[in-house]
Amino acid sequence: MIRTNESMANIVTIGGGTGTFVVLSGLKALPNVNLSAIVTTADDGGSTGRLRDAYGFLPLGDARQALVALSSDGTVLRDLFAYRFQKGDVTGHNLGNLFLTALTSLLGSEAAAIKEASRILRVKGYVIPATEKPAVLVARLEDGIEIRGEHAITDRTSFTTRIESVSLAEPMPLSETARDAIMKADAIILGPGTLYASSIAALLPSGTKEAIKNSKAKLIYIVNLFTRRGQTDGCTASHHVEEITKYAGRAPDVVIINTSPFPKEVLDLYTKDGECPVEDDLSQKLSVIRAPVASVQAAKPLPSDSVRRSLIRHDSERLREVLEPLIS
Amino acid sequence: MIRTNESMANIVTIGGGTGTFVVLSGLKALPNVNLSAIVTTADDGGSTGRLRDAYGFLPLGDARQALVALSSDGTVLRDLFAYRFQKGDVTGHNLGNLFLTALTSLLGSEAAAIKEASRILRVKGYVIPATEKPAVLVARLEDGIEIRGEHAITDRTSFTTRIESVSLAEPMPLSETARDAIMKADAIILGPGTLYASSIAALLPSGTKEAIKNSKAKLIYIVNLFTRRGQTDGCTASHHVEEITKYAGRAPDVVIINTSPFPKEVLDLYTKDGECPVEDDLSQKLSVIRAPVASVQAAKPLPSDSVRRSLIRHDSERLREVLEPLIS
Repeated sequence: MIRTNESMANIVTIGGGTGTFVVLSGLKALPNVNLSAIVTTADDGGSTGRLRDAYGFLPLGDARQALVALSSDGTVLRDLFAYRFQKGDVTGHNLGNLFLTALTSLLGSEAAAIKEASRILRVKGYVIPATEKPAVLVARLEDGIEIRGEHAITDRTSFTTRIESVSLAEPMPLSETARDAIMKADAIILGPGTLYASSIAALLPSGTKEAIKNSKAKLIYIVNLFTRRGQTDGCTASHHVEEITKYAGRAPDVVIINTSPFPKEVLDLYTKDGECPVEDDLSQKLSVIRAPVASVQAAKPLPSDSVRRSLIRHDSERLREVLEPLIS
Repeated sequence: MIRTNESMANIVTIGGGTGTFVVLSGLKALPNVNLSAIVTTADDGGSTGRLRDAYGFLPLGDARQALVALSSDGTVLRDLFAYRFQKGDVTGHNLGNLFLTALTSLLGSEAAAIKEASRILRVKGYVIPATEKPAVLVARLEDGIEIRGEHAITDRTSFTTRIESVSLAEPMPLSETARDAIMKADAIILGPGTLYASSIAALLPSGTKEAIKNSKAKLIYIVNLFTRRGQTDGCTASHHVEEITKYAGRAPDVVIINTSPFPKEVLDLYTKDGECPVEDDLSQKLSVIRAPVASVQAAKPLPSDSVRRSLIRHDSERLREVLEPLIS
């Protein structure tokens, strides 16, 4: 159940991964906001994937990142939850994932595990898995090939064509709690984050589109900084917005796009990987906020990082400054 | 540093494993005792061994059990710390061990990790590793064969002869904090527990014997319930006491031995394993307390269990009733 308070703005993020981590870390500092993070449940790679395969529980890697982002614990617990083992047979496992798996096993449900972890980590807000059962993401590429599984989609090694569409292998309903949060939201924030594997993956559970359409919330979309090779190659900002519009069921009320320039040496690293800044070709018809919301220095790896590490990221504080007047 | 309080009795347990777990769980309920658990650092099997091999940190499996025993946390945290994974590539690992390894890595020392874990688990008392560096236990059997490593000693599959003596592969000094606790102790409790691999292993660091000899503490030894195949086959109570006397540097002031009878069907299971109740042949010269201190029903597995599970155990509350007048 989401408690609401009339004087508080109900803010919902939908997505997962580093982008959502950065948004939540920024918004946590705002007074008078009631934060709910609806997170993807299609993760099947890395530590989360290994535990998903073994236990069959809901994959909580994205939930863990949101918990760490929203934690107000001032001790080492927050770092512990984000700690990743680098040695031995537990290499690659994340202590937070192991913690949530053990908690789910002890308490009997993922919801109870998230609630207890929220208490331990003194989380400000609510972390809500989008579905109650694990989802399986399927991507259809422009050349007609279908790829099954978020990990395979994100990590595939041949990068011939970009993604045309994504869906869930089996229809999976949006959880009641997630629907409830969307319906009560004053603002919904999508992105930044891997467009298909993260932002759109979280919109795929049945009922999500309808809930967003019926919600009176202001819909805010934060455009990614870079294209993603093998997924959004050459996609401009308007293409990103079109895709979000298609899967969210309505156009964003506000689009935020970065204007910070990037250092050439970092740009070169992205170019070598076949990735480039998302081109701002947004139409005059949209309400667009253009602001320097990226960290101009190469970002340190975040505790939420797993396989892939961005060199340039959105900046929590700058995003908060832009978001605050929109949501409160 | 061990804080002392004049009105409190300083009680020190030396050992590790299930026996110490049971003693500490019982004594925790006593008011006016200041508990310090000096734990073995020679563990090299199971989850602890795997992490010891990978990280080279002090093996903290016995420390973890003592932390759980002394925890006064009323939430699921205590169960979480004792949780053992049963599936996937983390099978056999214990969440508490993983937690302590991550903490040691984040904070830079085992002592800092134990201190922080004590805070999180609201531990009543102090958990003190016997040495600052990992110890390696060596057992010499009566037939002259030497076995290296606690795990090999405990789990060896050929059970031809019992253990004649144990030592550390390399001399390892008793930690300052452990020595300090022994010197300030009003009572020192040894056992119950695997005689050589647990009780005596904790007495092997250089300086332990001298500290116990120079301490004014009352020395209490709780005799094991059963012999251990391949280690103490056929050893009577007086043999146990002689061995403890040899390694502790002085005879126990009080010996506690069980009088509860055991159900025949459980005894048969032990007999099948080549183990039998430790025979009470204690001399009239010793101060012996004979009391029904065992659980007469087959014990449920404790969270501290790893490889081997006793069917009959000492009972925390009954031990406390016998110990209380001796130590307060």
